[in-house]
Amino acid sequence: MTISEILLEAEFKTPVVRVQKTVTKHLNKGSVEGMIVVMKSGATAEEISAMALRVESLGLKAHIIKGTERTVIAAVGEKRETTKEALAAGAGVAEILPILAPYKVASKEVKPEPTIITAGSLVVGGNAVGMIGGPCSVESEEQLMEAARAVKAAGGTGLRGGAFKPRTSPYSFQGMKEEGLKILANAREETGLAVVTEVLATEDVDLVASYADVLQIGARNMQNYRLLEAVGNTECAVMLKRGASATMDEFLLAAEYIMNEGNARVMLCERGIRTFESHTRFTLPLASVTYLKDKTHLPIVIDPSHGTGHAYLVPDMAVAAVAIGADALIIEMHPRPEEAMSDGYQSLTPEQFQDTMDRCRTIANAIGKQM
Amino acid sequence: MTISEILLEAEFKTPVVRVQKTVTKHLNKGSVEGMIVVMKSGATAEEISAMALRVESLGLKAHIIKGTERTVIAAVGEKRETTKEALAAGAGVAEILPILAPYKVASKEVKPEPTIITAGSLVVGGNAVGMIGGPCSVESEEQLMEAARAVKAAGGTGLRGGAFKPRTSPYSFQGMKEEGLKILANAREETGLAVVTEVLATEDVDLVASYADVLQIGARNMQNYRLLEAVGNTECAVMLKRGASATMDEFLLAAEYIMNEGNARVMLCERGIRTFESHTRFTLPLASVTYLKDKTHLPIVIDPSHGTGHAYLVPDMAVAAVAIGADALIIEMHPRPEEAMSDGYQSLTPEQFQDTMDRCRTIANAIGKQM
Amino acid sequence: MTISEILLEAEFKTPVVRVQKTVTKHLNKGSVEGMIVVMKSGATAEEISAMALRVESLGLKAHIIKGTERTVIAAVGEKRETTKEALAAGAGVAEILPILAPYKVASKEVKPEPTIITAGSLVVGGNAVGMIGGPCSVESEEQLMEAARAVKAAGGTGLRGGAFKPRTSPYSFQGMKEEGLKILANAREETGLAVVTEVLATEDVDLVASYADVLQIGARNMQNYRLLEAVGNTECAVMLKRGASATMDEFLLAAEYIMNEGNARVMLCERGIRTFESHTRFTLPLASVTYLKDKTHLPIVIDPSHGTGHAYLVPDMAVAAVAIGADALIIEMHPRPEEAMSDGYQSLTPEQFQDTMDRCRTIANAIGKQM
Amino acid sequence: MTISEILLEAEFKTPVVRVQKTVTKHLNKGSVEGMIVVMKSGATAEEISAMALRVESLGLKAHIIKGTERTVIAAVGEKRETTKEALAAGAGVAEILPILAPYKVASKEVKPEPTIITAGSLVVGGNAVGMIGGPCSVESEEQLMEAARAVKAAGGTGLRGGAFKPRTSPYSFQGMKEEGLKILANAREETGLAVVTEVLATEDVDLVASYADVLQIGARNMQNYRLLEAVGNTECAVMLKRGASATMDEFLLAAEYIMNEGNARVMLCERGIRTFESHTRFTLPLASVTYLKDKTHLPIVIDPSHGTGHAYLVPDMAVAAVAIGADALIIEMHPRPEEAMSDGYQSLTPEQFQDTMDRCRTIANAIGKQM
Repeated sequence: MTISEILLEAEFKTPVVRVQKTVTKHLNKGSVEGMIVVMKSGATAEEISAMALRVESLGLKAHIIKGTERTVIAAVGEKRETTKEALAAGAGVAEILPILAPYKVASKEVKPEPTIITAGSLVVGGNAVGMIGGPCSVESEEQLMEAARAVKAAGGTGLRGGAFKPRTSPYSFQGMKEEGLKILANAREETGLAVVTEVLATEDVDLVASYADVLQIGARNMQNYRLLEAVGNTECAVMLKRGASATMDEFLLAAEYIMNEGNARVMLCERGIRTFESHTRFTLPLASVTYLKDKTHLPIVIDPSHGTGHAYLVPDMAVAAVAIGADALIIEMHPRPEEAMSDGYQSLTPEQFQDTMDRCRTIANAIGKQM
Repeated sequence: MTISEILLEAEFKTPVVRVQKTVTKHLNKGSVEGMIVVMKSGATAEEISAMALRVESLGLKAHIIKGTERTVIAAVGEKRETTKEALAAGAGVAEILPILAPYKVASKEVKPEPTIITAGSLVVGGNAVGMIGGPCSVESEEQLMEAARAVKAAGGTGLRGGAFKPRTSPYSFQGMKEEGLKILANAREETGLAVVTEVLATEDVDLVASYADVLQIGARNMQNYRLLEAVGNTECAVMLKRGASATMDEFLLAAEYIMNEGNARVMLCERGIRTFESHTRFTLPLASVTYLKDKTHLPIVIDPSHGTGHAYLVPDMAVAAVAIGADALIIEMHPRPEEAMSDGYQSLTPEQFQDTMDRCRTIANAIGKQM
Repeated sequence: MTISEILLEAEFKTPVVRVQKTVTKHLNKGSVEGMIVVMKSGATAEEISAMALRVESLGLKAHIIKGTERTVIAAVGEKRETTKEALAAGAGVAEILPILAPYKVASKEVKPEPTIITAGSLVVGGNAVGMIGGPCSVESEEQLMEAARAVKAAGGTGLRGGAFKPRTSPYSFQGMKEEGLKILANAREETGLAVVTEVLATEDVDLVASYADVLQIGARNMQNYRLLEAVGNTECAVMLKRGASATMDEFLLAAEYIMNEGNARVMLCERGIRTFESHTRFTLPLASVTYLKDKTHLPIVIDPSHGTGHAYLVPDMAVAAVAIGADALIIEMHPRPEEAMSDGYQSLTPEQFQDTMDRCRTIANAIGKQM
Repeated sequence: MTISEILLEAEFKTPVVRVQKTVTKHLNKGSVEGMIVVMKSGATAEEISAMALRVESLGLKAHIIKGTERTVIAAVGEKRETTKEALAAGAGVAEILPILAPYKVASKEVKPEPTIITAGSLVVGGNAVGMIGGPCSVESEEQLMEAARAVKAAGGTGLRGGAFKPRTSPYSFQGMKEEGLKILANAREETGLAVVTEVLATEDVDLVASYADVLQIGARNMQNYRLLEAVGNTECAVMLKRGASATMDEFLLAAEYIMNEGNARVMLCERGIRTFESHTRFTLPLASVTYLKDKTHLPIVIDPSHGTGHAYLVPDMAVAAVAIGADALIIEMHPRPEEAMSDGYQSLTPEQFQDTMDRCRTIANAIGKQM
C-alpha cells in the first residue's frame, strides 16, 4: 500500500497514520525531538506523501494527521542539527513547529481538533456521549445476554464484560476466556452493541482483537509497555485505563506508546486514583476531564464504578461526569449484583442503570449533547 | 428563657437547639452513648420540653430537632444501664432508637430531612443552589466593591473575602483584619450579599461574628477544637471546610463539635484533599457530596477554586458540582486576578464568573433547581 | 535589657535571639526579603549590637545567631532597593548574603551548625539521642508516676503525657487539664525527667508553659498560626509536630512562625503522613530526617508511635530512627496499655519500652552517639 | 521425577515445592480454601509423598514445605465440605489447620521459619545482609565492568543492571537487551557477583532466565499476572518489587501468583509508594519490613534509590534499612552518575557506595549480622 493510499484511507478511518516502522528505539537520553510539519492549506496528496517520505528518510517516524483545516505531519525521532532545515525545504510546507509536550502524537499541539473514535455502534468524542454498560465478568450466556438487552433497552451504545480477568488473588475466578469472548460476540449480534473487553497479555491480543470492537487495557497494565505496543499494532480501538497512581504525563505517555506503533484510536479512561480516602474504593478526580482536554485531542471516558467502588455513588458521579464533558461512561451493571462473581457491590441493577441513563441524558441535552 | 420558648423560637431560626450545658466532657473512653427520643406526632410543646428536661436530668445533653413530620430529641452523654427505660417512661414518647454513627447530632439518623440554612441573602440547602463569589483576600475598598458588584450582577447570593488570612509563611500578607471586615459590611449594605469570611482564632470570634453572616473555618483549622467550640457558641452560621487530609468521620465529628455547643447551622465545605496529583493543587472528590448526603442532614458546599488551584479548571468543576447536587458553591473571583495579593492563579475574572454562573444555572434548571 | 545583654545571655540560652518586634506583618505579596549579615570573626559585641540596631532601624527584624565560628544577623523584612548597601556599610560586617529558602531563620543558610536544645534533663541535638516516653494522656497520679518511673529506669530523658487532649470526637476524654499538669510536675520532681506536654489553645499557653519544659504543638495545630505565635512568645522550648499532610516547606514555615516571634528553641517532630496505606495508622517517612538536616539547623524528633499506630511496629522503627540520625524519639508507653483511655493499641508496655531503649542504645553507640 | 525425589531435592534447593499442576483456576467467587496439613515429626518421606498425592487427588494443589522442625503440606483449592476429614485420615498427619490469610503459600502460617534464598553469590535472608549494587541500565561493557568491580571491591554480593528497561516514554532508551545480558554474564564471570536483572514480558522470560541469577519484576509489572506466572515456572529466584500504590495484601498475593506456579524463591522488594510528598520521588515506608516479616516467611529487600529518588538521601536510608532488619539492599551506583542514560540523579558514585557499605556493615555488626 502506498503512502497516498494510506492517506486516502486515513480520512475515513482514523486521523493519525504511521507510515513506516524504521526508527530504532535505541535512542540516547534526552535526544528525542518532535516537530510538527504544517502543510499549506492547498497542499496536494502528492506533496503530503512526499513530505512523509522525506521525514522517514531523515530517520524520523512520520505520523500524518488530517485536521479539518490543515494537514500536519508529526515527525518524531533522534535530535539532529539539520533536521528542521531539511524539512522546511519540502514542497507544500507552511511552517515547522516544535512539539513541547513529552508526548508527541497524543499532544493537542499536533492536532487541536478533538478526535472522534467510532468502534461499531459506539461513538466516543464529539457531540455524542457514549454509554458502555455491562457486567464486570462474563459469567454465562444467560447472564450476559440479559445484561446486554438491559444496556440496549436503556439506550447504551457499548457492552462491557471481562473474558480475561486480572484478579488480585491467583485463586479468584480468572474469567471464561475465549468462551466468554464468543458470548460477547453473540450479544453484539443480537443487540448491535459494540464490545469492549480487556486484554491482559500480548499473546492474547490477536484472539481478543478478533472478537472485540474496543480492546481495554486495565489500570494494572497501564505501564505494561509490551502490551501497549501489541495493541498499537492492531486495527482495533483501545480504551486505556489510568493506573491507580499514574501521573497525567505517565498516562499520556502510555497512550503515546500505542500511537507510536500506528494505532491512533485511543480513548483515555479515568477510573480513579489511590488516596487516603477509605469510604470510596478509589478517588475519582473529574478535573482530569478538563485537564486532559486541554492537553490532548484524544477522547475521555469516565468509569464511576471503579472510581467509587459503591453502587450508591455511581449514578451521581455518572451525571457529574456528563456535566463536565466526558465523551463516554463505562458502568458496571449486572442482572443480579448480589450474585456477581466479581465487583457485585459496585454494580448497578438494570433498573438503576436505566435511571442513571435517563438522568445523564437530561444533563447531556441541557449542554447541547446527545446520548 | 424556658425550654418551651426556645422550642418555639427554634421553629423559625434553626432546627437544632441545645437546651443546657450540663454535661461534663470528662467521659471515660467508649462510654458515650447517643439516643433518639422520637416524640409522637401529636406531642405537645409541653411534653417535648418536659422530655428535654428529663434528658438533662439524667445527665445527658438534649438537642431538640423539629422535623416536618416528627420532633425528636437527641440525647447524648455517658452510657448507663438505666437511661433507655427512664426516657421511655416520658409522656408523648413514640420510641427510643440508638444513634449508631460516631457523630450524633450531625447524623441523618437523628434528622432525615435535609437542613436548610439561611444567612442573610444566602440560602444553602433545599431547592436553591447558593453561589458565593469574591476574592481570596479583602485588599481595598475599591477591589472588594468591584468584586461584590460583579457577584451581584452575575446572580450570586454570597460574598467571600478574607480579612484574617491564614498564610503558610509568616512573611506573607496576613489580611486587613477589622478594616477588611468593615469593607465587607459596606459591600453587604450596597449589594445585599451575605458576607462569608474566615475566623482564625477564638479571640476574634466575637469580632468577626459581629460583621459576618457566615463564619468560615478554614481547612487548616478543621481540628482546632477550641475554635470549633467558640463558633458553636455564636448565633452565626458556620461554613466548615474539610481538612486536606481529613477522613469523612473526622470531618463530621468536627461539625459535631460545633453542634454540640448548640449551633446547628453548619454547612460542610469539600475543598479537595491532598494526593499525589501535582497538576492540581488538591484533588476534589465530588463523590463526597453523595456520601455526605447519605450520612448527614447538613448542606454541602463545594469549593472548586481550592479544589483545583487553577482558574481554567474551576468553571467545569463548578458545573459538575451543581450536577451532583451540591447545595452551594464558593468560588474565588478577583477584578484583576493578575494583581491579586493571594491566590490569583485560581481566581476567575468577573466575566468568567458570570459565564460560570450561567452554565451552572443551565444545569441547575435541568435538574429542577433554582440558582 | 540591652541588645548586648541579650546577646551575652544568648550564648548560654539559645542561639537565636530576636531583638525587637517592630516589623509590620502587612507586607505586600512577594515583597519579603531575607539577608544574612555575616560579621567578621573578630567583631565585638558592640559592633554586633550596633549592627542589629541598624537592621531594625531599616524596618527589618534582626535575629542574632552566634555560631561556633562566626556570628551572623538574619535580617528579614520588606524588600527595598537600598537595604543591602545600608547594611554593608556597618562596622564589623564581612559580607551580606541573600537567604534563598522561603523560611529564613529556620534555614541552614543562616546557621550551618546544628542547634542543640536543652530543656531540663532533655538534650535534643548534638551527640546525644533524647528519649521521651510516657502515656498518651495523663489519667491519674498513679498511672503517670508508674510510667515516669519506668521511663527513668529505662534511661529516658523526657516524660510525655497529655493534659489537654485534642480528640476527634467531642464525646471522647478531653484530658485532666491543670490537674494533669500538676501530676506531670510532681513526676518531674521525683524523677528529674523533663516534661513534654501539648498545648491546644492560645489561652492556655501561659498555664501550660508554667508547668512544661517543652510545649508540644500537635499535628492538627501545625498551621494554627496564632498558637504558633503564642508559643513563640514564651521562653519555653517547643516540639512542633508535622501535620499529617503538610509539605516540608509548610512544616519549616510553621517553625518560622514560632522563631519569628523570638523563640528559637524549636524541635521538629516527624510523626507520619496520611497515605493510602491502611496497615499502618500513618506512613512514617524516615527520609525526612536526612532531608530536614540538609535544610535546617533545628533538631529532629521521630514519633514511631503515631507514625505506625501499632505497638508491634514501634521498636523496630525506633531503632531505624536512631540509625538514620534522629536527635530524639518520643514513644508512647503505658503501664497497662489495654486499660489506656486513649491510644492503647500503639503504646508499649514498660518492658517493651526498656527493651526498645536497649536496642536503640546499641545502634546509637555503634554510630558514636550516646543514649 | 517422583514426588519423593522432588521432596529430597527440595531440601537442598528450595523449601516449597509444588507437585503437580492439576487445579483449574476457574473457581467460583469466595470458594477457595487453604489448609495446612501438619505432618508428625517422625513422618517418613513415603507418608509425606502419599499425603501430597492424596491432596492432589482431592483436586487441591499441594505445596510441600519442609521446616526445621516439621514438614507441612499446604493444600489450596476449591472449598468442599469433606476435604478436612479426607485429609485427616492420611497416615502421619498430626493436625489440619486453616490458612486464614488471603495468600496461602506465602503466609507465615504455613512456614513460620524465615526463608533464605541463595542465588549464586547472593544470599538473602537469615543472618547475612545482601548488598546488590550497580547501574540502572547496562550502557556498555566498560561502564558495567567498572560498576561491577566497584560493587565487588566494596563487598557487595549482587550486581544489578537493566538490559530490558521499562521507560515512561516510548522515546527513551529501552535498554541493550540480549547484548546487555551478555555483558552482565561477563561481569559475573569476572567478579563472581550474582546477576539481578529485570524481565518485562513473558516472551523474554526464558532468555533473561538463561543469564540471570535473580529475575526482577518491576513495580509497574507487579500486577502483570501472566508475567508472574511465567517467572513462577522458571527455576530462577525472583525479586518482586512492590507497585507504587499496591497494598500489602496485593503485594503478597502477587508473590502468591509466582509461588502458586511452583517457584518459592521469591524475595519481596519495598521500593517506595506514591504519596503527596514531592521532595522525594516516592515515600519509602521502612515499617513494611516489620509488617512483612510478621506476615510472611519470604525475605525482604529495600531499594533506597527508587524509594527516595535522590542520591544524597540514599546512604542514610540504607543504614536505617539495615537497622530495621532488611535482608538485602539494592542500590543504584554508576561510575559517572552525571553521564548515566537513566536515573543518574539517584545513583551513588563508587566512593559513596563504598562508604554506604561501610556504614551499613557497622550497623549490621552491631545487631549481630554479617555483611
